[in-house]
Amino acid sequence: MKENLLIVHGGGPTAVINASLYGAVEEARRSGQVGRILAAKNGTGGLLKEEFIDLTDVPEEKLRLLLQTPGSAIGTSRDQLEQPEYEAMARILEKHDIHKVLMNGGNGTMDTCGKLYKTCKAMGNDILVMGIPKTMDNDLAITDHAPGYGSAARYVAESTKELVQDVKGLPIHVVVLEVSGRNAGWITAASALAADGNGEGPDLIYLPERPFDEDRFISDVKRLLEKKKGIVVVASEGLKDKDGNPIVEPIFKVGRSTYFGDVGTHLANVVIRRLGYKARGEKPGLLGRCSILMQSTVDREEARLAGELACQALLRGETGKMVGFKRISTEPYQVEPILIDIDEVMLHEKTLPEEFINADGNGVTEAFKTWARPLIGQGLDEMISFN
Amino acid sequence: MKENLLIVHGGGPTAVINASLYGAVEEARRSGQVGRILAAKNGTGGLLKEEFIDLTDVPEEKLRLLLQTPGSAIGTSRDQLEQPEYEAMARILEKHDIHKVLMNGGNGTMDTCGKLYKTCKAMGNDILVMGIPKTMDNDLAITDHAPGYGSAARYVAESTKELVQDVKGLPIHVVVLEVSGRNAGWITAASALAADGNGEGPDLIYLPERPFDEDRFISDVKRLLEKKKGIVVVASEGLKDKDGNPIVEPIFKVGRSTYFGDVGTHLANVVIRRLGYKARGEKPGLLGRCSILMQSTVDREEARLAGELACQALLRGETGKMVGFKRISTEPYQVEPILIDIDEVMLHEKTLPEEFINADGNGVTEAFKTWARPLIGQGLDEMISFN
Repeated sequence: MKENLLIVHGGGPTAVINASLYGAVEEARRSGQVGRILAAKNGTGGLLKEEFIDLTDVPEEKLRLLLQTPGSAIGTSRDQLEQPEYEAMARILEKHDIHKVLMNGGNGTMDTCGKLYKTCKAMGNDILVMGIPKTMDNDLAITDHAPGYGSAARYVAESTKELVQDVKGLPIHVVVLEVSGRNAGWITAASALAADGNGEGPDLIYLPERPFDEDRFISDVKRLLEKKKGIVVVASEGLKDKDGNPIVEPIFKVGRSTYFGDVGTHLANVVIRRLGYKARGEKPGLLGRCSILMQSTVDREEARLAGELACQALLRGETGKMVGFKRISTEPYQVEPILIDIDEVMLHEKTLPEEFINADGNGVTEAFKTWARPLIGQGLDEMISFN
Repeated sequence: MKENLLIVHGGGPTAVINASLYGAVEEARRSGQVGRILAAKNGTGGLLKEEFIDLTDVPEEKLRLLLQTPGSAIGTSRDQLEQPEYEAMARILEKHDIHKVLMNGGNGTMDTCGKLYKTCKAMGNDILVMGIPKTMDNDLAITDHAPGYGSAARYVAESTKELVQDVKGLPIHVVVLEVSGRNAGWITAASALAADGNGEGPDLIYLPERPFDEDRFISDVKRLLEKKKGIVVVASEGLKDKDGNPIVEPIFKVGRSTYFGDVGTHLANVVIRRLGYKARGEKPGLLGRCSILMQSTVDREEARLAGELACQALLRGETGKMVGFKRISTEPYQVEPILIDIDEVMLHEKTLPEEFINADGNGVTEAFKTWARPLIGQGLDEMISFN
């Protein structure tokens, strides 16, 4: 009897995590080497409760809908696990004759993936564990970028382009768009792509990699408002001051989560208070990771491929690794899939390098835009403006 | 020599205001009866400053980009005008040999349109003035609905569908989506269409037409969280308590504008404070009126048609009216263009009728969904979920 394969999702969903699931399931079916193709219902918690979803016989026309389904179609979790739980998982896997495991997620999940791999190795069973990269934040180490980022980047680029066009037509003095990415500014930076084609980019971009200085922000805004009537600021939700404290006060703590005020609204209020200009903050928040209409075609295809390749690697006996992408060339865009030792990615958070941030710390460089442009896929539509 | 035509935009842009501009310009060209086709740069303010944009000879392939350009491609304004300014406008129109004026906007603009029409009539000149309806809020009277609404409705329906799917995959206890529409709940109500196809709708919808009771909200949320782990609430930005006061305190006043806190974040904080559950608020804000990818095809076509018909009406000598749509049938969807006396629409704000709001005041009726469904155009994509 053929051994079974299990797919587990971890962490926040993206617009393409289900595309990786599709790629993995398709490859497992095609191989003819897998018994049941199972998914853990709602992440590692489901695995520990032995709650499995059997995807082996889902009709192809149904399965293809995964490519256009946001969220995680098998559920996901943010469980923090202790060593005894890893051992329990390993025993459950053996019990269900599951000898191949795919874990799809970001830094936290790759940590889980690495620990499960090491536990299995130490226990001497023959369970193979492979990671599929996924993070809208793009903060996974070694890989050029991770599936989920391109779509989040396209969402921000499109939204910024449209917001700039809206504000240009009826100037509100300052609009601040708050963008996801608490420690890494990759998504926030992608707003600069709004200037591609005949769009206009945001006027100011504030990244969490640089300490935020309120006085400099106010002087940036003031200088720009002397030249034009409406400006668009894009700000990371994770802006911190020079001492590393969030620029918005924590307002609640519930369990492990601390709640901060909204950065966009906070900065808008600073503008109103200190300059007397009109201002408003917008925060699409979770909408920025689940928009199917703004999916990047490149991102979706790479996500599918990452699932397929991780499954292939498992089937040829690889373990303790994560699929990644190495950039071969940018123009034309070309990447090569690679396998990365899981130790190299476990919890190593990758932030924007210096060469991608401008000297004033209020924008990005051309180098960043050149790097990011291919990832958002089809590019932005042309517009026209007469005013 | 042929007389000139002027197009003026007023109020906040929508995703399709430029489609009406396209329709009007195309019709004016086709007619062969118009001299120069002019636009006031940035609304009535531009007219008063005699700043015109000449659209007569813009190549067709450029002009077509208006169909996919958000914001107002000729600018718009929120100027509040006094009687001497109407007289000044009328004199400027005569000076530039403009005898036909199209004003595109919502309630405020139709008020301006009506006053300009009356001023011209009183002055005895032969300037004709026609209104083109436009409002994402859908609060214009008499007409079944106004261009701009269908796209805003589709944005909210799509966003809610995706948000519900995201939350289902990784439950955050409560997510509150704040939606535009301070006094009228038309856009907020459209979130219910997220349940179409195989999507799931929001769990609770709070409309500005009903007084908001915090205790009832908390008991609604508590009851639902006993059954499921993550719920999605959609709330109008304009929620008011039983005394008619906004549920969020005004935090600033600058000029004519009062700034309130964000309703979504406020309600999330109420949940955290009173129930101890995790919660977050999202506010796409202006993004909800400028998304081209979420444009409704029906809305865009009706916007184009409204521009075309208003221009036709002007050319056959009509004045002091607004184009509107009368619904002939819902299944199949069929509307008939009508002309409405401008007096009937000037500043008459249309809110959701009783039969569109459910008995508990926390959702909408099937009658609303049946009414709204055709307006969002192509409908929502299918998804798949296993958890």
